[in-house]
Amino acid sequence: MQTLVQHPTSFLDAIVTPAELKKLSINELRSLAQEIRAEIVRNLNKTGGHLASNLGIVEITLALHYVFETPRDQILWDVGHQAYVHKMLTGRRDKFQSLRQFKGLSGFINPQESEHDSFVAGHSSTSVSLGVGMAIARDHLKQDHKVIALIGDGGLTGGMALEALNHLGHIQRDVLILLNDNEMSISENLGGFSQYMKRIKETFFYKDIKQKITLLEDQLDGMSLTPAVWKLIESVKHEATERIDTPGIVFEKLGVNYSGPIDGHDVGAIIEMFNKVKNERVPLIAHLITQKGKGFDPAERDSIKYHGVKKSFEPRVEPAASEQAQKSKSAKTYSDVFTDALIDLAKVEPNLVAITPATAEGSGLVKFGKAYPERFFDVAICEQHAVTMAAGMAKAGLKPVVSIYSTFLQRAIDQVIHDVAIMNLPVVFGIDRGGLVEDGETHQGVFDIAFMRSVPNFTVLAPKDANELRSMLYMTIKESKGPVAIRFPRDEAVNPENLASGETFTTIDCTKWEVLQEGAPLNGSNANIVVLAHGAMVKAATEASLGLKEKGIDITIVNARSVKPLDVQMLNTLLDNPENQIITLEEGCVSGGFGAAVLEHRSQYRMSDPKKRLAEVVPLGVPDRFIEHGGRAILLDEVGLGHKKLVEFISGFAGQ
Amino acid sequence: MQTLVQHPTSFLDAIVTPAELKKLSINELRSLAQEIRAEIVRNLNKTGGHLASNLGIVEITLALHYVFETPRDQILWDVGHQAYVHKMLTGRRDKFQSLRQFKGLSGFINPQESEHDSFVAGHSSTSVSLGVGMAIARDHLKQDHKVIALIGDGGLTGGMALEALNHLGHIQRDVLILLNDNEMSISENLGGFSQYMKRIKETFFYKDIKQKITLLEDQLDGMSLTPAVWKLIESVKHEATERIDTPGIVFEKLGVNYSGPIDGHDVGAIIEMFNKVKNERVPLIAHLITQKGKGFDPAERDSIKYHGVKKSFEPRVEPAASEQAQKSKSAKTYSDVFTDALIDLAKVEPNLVAITPATAEGSGLVKFGKAYPERFFDVAICEQHAVTMAAGMAKAGLKPVVSIYSTFLQRAIDQVIHDVAIMNLPVVFGIDRGGLVEDGETHQGVFDIAFMRSVPNFTVLAPKDANELRSMLYMTIKESKGPVAIRFPRDEAVNPENLASGETFTTIDCTKWEVLQEGAPLNGSNANIVVLAHGAMVKAATEASLGLKEKGIDITIVNARSVKPLDVQMLNTLLDNPENQIITLEEGCVSGGFGAAVLEHRSQYRMSDPKKRLAEVVPLGVPDRFIEHGGRAILLDEVGLGHKKLVEFISGFAGQ
Repeated sequence: MQTLVQHPTSFLDAIVTPAELKKLSINELRSLAQEIRAEIVRNLNKTGGHLASNLGIVEITLALHYVFETPRDQILWDVGHQAYVHKMLTGRRDKFQSLRQFKGLSGFINPQESEHDSFVAGHSSTSVSLGVGMAIARDHLKQDHKVIALIGDGGLTGGMALEALNHLGHIQRDVLILLNDNEMSISENLGGFSQYMKRIKETFFYKDIKQKITLLEDQLDGMSLTPAVWKLIESVKHEATERIDTPGIVFEKLGVNYSGPIDGHDVGAIIEMFNKVKNERVPLIAHLITQKGKGFDPAERDSIKYHGVKKSFEPRVEPAASEQAQKSKSAKTYSDVFTDALIDLAKVEPNLVAITPATAEGSGLVKFGKAYPERFFDVAICEQHAVTMAAGMAKAGLKPVVSIYSTFLQRAIDQVIHDVAIMNLPVVFGIDRGGLVEDGETHQGVFDIAFMRSVPNFTVLAPKDANELRSMLYMTIKESKGPVAIRFPRDEAVNPENLASGETFTTIDCTKWEVLQEGAPLNGSNANIVVLAHGAMVKAATEASLGLKEKGIDITIVNARSVKPLDVQMLNTLLDNPENQIITLEEGCVSGGFGAAVLEHRSQYRMSDPKKRLAEVVPLGVPDRFIEHGGRAILLDEVGLGHKKLVEFISGFAGQ
Repeated sequence: MQTLVQHPTSFLDAIVTPAELKKLSINELRSLAQEIRAEIVRNLNKTGGHLASNLGIVEITLALHYVFETPRDQILWDVGHQAYVHKMLTGRRDKFQSLRQFKGLSGFINPQESEHDSFVAGHSSTSVSLGVGMAIARDHLKQDHKVIALIGDGGLTGGMALEALNHLGHIQRDVLILLNDNEMSISENLGGFSQYMKRIKETFFYKDIKQKITLLEDQLDGMSLTPAVWKLIESVKHEATERIDTPGIVFEKLGVNYSGPIDGHDVGAIIEMFNKVKNERVPLIAHLITQKGKGFDPAERDSIKYHGVKKSFEPRVEPAASEQAQKSKSAKTYSDVFTDALIDLAKVEPNLVAITPATAEGSGLVKFGKAYPERFFDVAICEQHAVTMAAGMAKAGLKPVVSIYSTFLQRAIDQVIHDVAIMNLPVVFGIDRGGLVEDGETHQGVFDIAFMRSVPNFTVLAPKDANELRSMLYMTIKESKGPVAIRFPRDEAVNPENLASGETFTTIDCTKWEVLQEGAPLNGSNANIVVLAHGAMVKAATEASLGLKEKGIDITIVNARSVKPLDVQMLNTLLDNPENQIITLEEGCVSGGFGAAVLEHRSQYRMSDPKKRLAEVVPLGVPDRFIEHGGRAILLDEVGLGHKKLVEFISGFAGQ
């Protein structure tokens, strides 16, 4: 792509708001599209971010702002990581060097950034429901603007998008749905529905059957046919008109009009279509065919690899200092450890199967899929179906492991309760992205501990390091008779050097805690500071203990790997010394989480002897607010869970 | 129906297991169907239960057990309250007098009752996902049996069912889906999809277009047409074959074969079809048209009214002692109070809209729909869509109130977080069935307090009585700028005599607690027993206090109407006296609930002065196990929250 080398930005430079855009000709828009693509590649080469989807949606975004008028018209993005072009066109171009950084530009749609961002978007398949709600509100308030819901072919597999389409088809409000069909969601998304859409494209150029019948009529015109035969022809024609399979028939059957498919990279064609439908007052789905990674060869060839890129993916243009990138490349993440362990376990456990709701790439599970294609199920963006399907599998004798991101598990809480837990089935949940992540509010995996521990029959675990994750998975698959959740953060795994491999697994008792270091009483008193650290917080506690030692404070650190059940034997011993100061640490919401579990147990334990004094407990975790985007280490500091903040807190505490 | 008066049971009496059924002729099955219907009406007249749906599925159930072989073949019921006939045929006929009673026959599918019940079913739209999971397991384990998923037309509107169909269409496993299409879910279910299915039925008797073209060919046979014209006719015929709109085209487009529609009350036709598809090894949806309430005139005429019946609905046959039924009829439930308040509020608040996911009847909201049809949205069984649509409405200026059952809200937890809470939108959730209900495990509304209070930006409330519910709704609509959850139990409202009406609303400060009675220190000490009762537990606490008074114990009762925020001012005052014994009471899971919130606050408050001793807190709530079915009062006793159990607990406590 020539623009990688020489990259004019003359059109882009002129655009401060969408108003400037509207003055360009179609040809000028095409040049602008080229400039935008080059700038996206340049920017992301420095910061990392979502590449392929943003390259794919350049022309659609240009056409949207060319024809419609934000913020009056409402554009509802789905998922929202494909809004870089939109951000560039709405006054945020100069902020791209801070993309996804703490206090910098969000990688997702964010109404706090701009009035042109209508609604938060981070999870998939929400836009049509929002559009229906906004259209009803518009009509009720007698306003006049367009509500436009974007959705990808992947997003359309999500159940709630289908619920929304079904409702829209009934209530017939004016919502324009733009189906950005790039034949690919995050993972290889293969529902019957995508195959249907593929067939739409294949049959698009079929000559219309009705036209053919008309032609036949012309041919037969001179013949002496009986009225009965003419009637028969008429009837065939009628049925062909009424009942013929049109490209968008599934949508039309649901009551939503269909237009397309058209080339989503032909900005002129899109604008023409938008102008045509602009004043329609009906639900309409416009089918736009795009290509992820469009205009950047490597991404066109492998859009999954280039879905999200790290810095310096393209050495041909201004690479960022690549030390960090190299480091990240070689390090093993918890996701890697999880997948490797699963592959090793699959060898010895023939009934183990793995399930992912369209996160095969992000979770590393794509590797499992290659090793065991028959035992790997990517169900598309369908968390609800994934969980209940796993329940069916477990009931019928398989050992299903559901790999799912913490926030996406929120989509399937009812299925976890109703289909897995009530039946007490041995479904294993590998909860990835448990804890704080750079993506921001919509992706912070902070609710899983609190939610899962409230559900009867569940075991809730988190490992302190790489090998403990491997062991937990092994022990769970081997021994567990009920549901188990194992959560880990989106980060490099701790102590990768101790990681077993192949057919070697370290056995542990997952539900017992482990004293990692014994502290010393404060100032000769009997008062110990005991930190009960869950999962990734063990690392923070260990680091904090070094800083505390410098201040003369020796803390006890317990690897509280199991939130449910609690290791009540160890906990009771700790509680029995009323001088102990027990601090719980978790990378999850403090409301109802691990700390609350310890407090609840303390209350219950006290019932056995209400007069007895017990040690007090201080729960530390993520506070009761939504946490913005930024690197995990920065965010941990921000919420008081970074090791330096822990040193401050504990030493302040000990001083009193 | 003659069988109401004279009701032979000779065929039914002979059936102990499905084996006996298989010996009958089709005509005998028809007689059996009549006997079953009469027995269902008789039974339910004594016990209450789900009438219309069970009358509608008699022949399908007979045919299932006639052709297939449970428990080898897996029948997956959806929702599962339509399995009475199945229960009668699988050895549970004699238990119907205990239907839905504590320790009696469950009203839903329950694997603990019988090996013929494959999987728990209480919530809608799960059966296809379970079927997919079980079919994958069967194939993996090289077993040979049929997996049959039943689903209603209502259930099919649920997003997860569509996710499952989509996946099934891709993986092409052998699952037989029986679509029990009775044109009606619990409420008037009007999605585009149901309209599609309605059109299937209307066009069912159309003569096939292909046949017509063949006829046309015959007619033209003698004519001297050019080869080009014949080619044109051939091409029309080809396209008609390939691309014509068949009744099941939407399913077929998704990759699932379609058969039907057939009359779901013609047991012979169903059996014929089952025998035909029995050995097919493909995904197939069989479309069966049934009528809810079939065979019982009043229920045929009004299947919504007869969806669930109370005792003695049919005075013509053996009415139960009807005192209780009369009482229940006249009493006002919390659902009634909620709906009436909403109707009154809608008069003064023109932008108030109400949303229900197919529970208009059960929640009483159908009355609102009649009063304000333009401001009422029944979105079918689509909880996810309901919540996100409400978020869109709120963002665009409406005041949406989502009426939703506690356990169904579990379907939309992610939407609550991602679309409502992050945006901090004023969506009001009226959480009905919060607490214990007679339906059993799948319907126990015990997780909402714990879940909702963990979500930032939420206010979480529950009223002590009828008028407080009305006031909360009023104050919330009037003042709230963010999301609010108001939960209430499935029961008669407390203190209906104090309920305001019309345009009168009592103002309260929803987030402040209220001291209802001041207790006295125990035995001249400084130790007070303080009960912080949330919502419906105020009644239990008040009743318990009478029993305790008899034992010389005067407790303080606080109406802790707000779980979030806590009334920290009052709470701190109570905590400041270390001799106080504070007991929290909630009709929700004790893990992470209201009590945990109080414990967390106590820990935080202690941080201001770690040396200070504070009152201890005992959280009481629903224990960490799934609670079976039975009347609410019995279940409350069972979990220790009934007033007599509270007297025992507190007096034991005070004695120590």
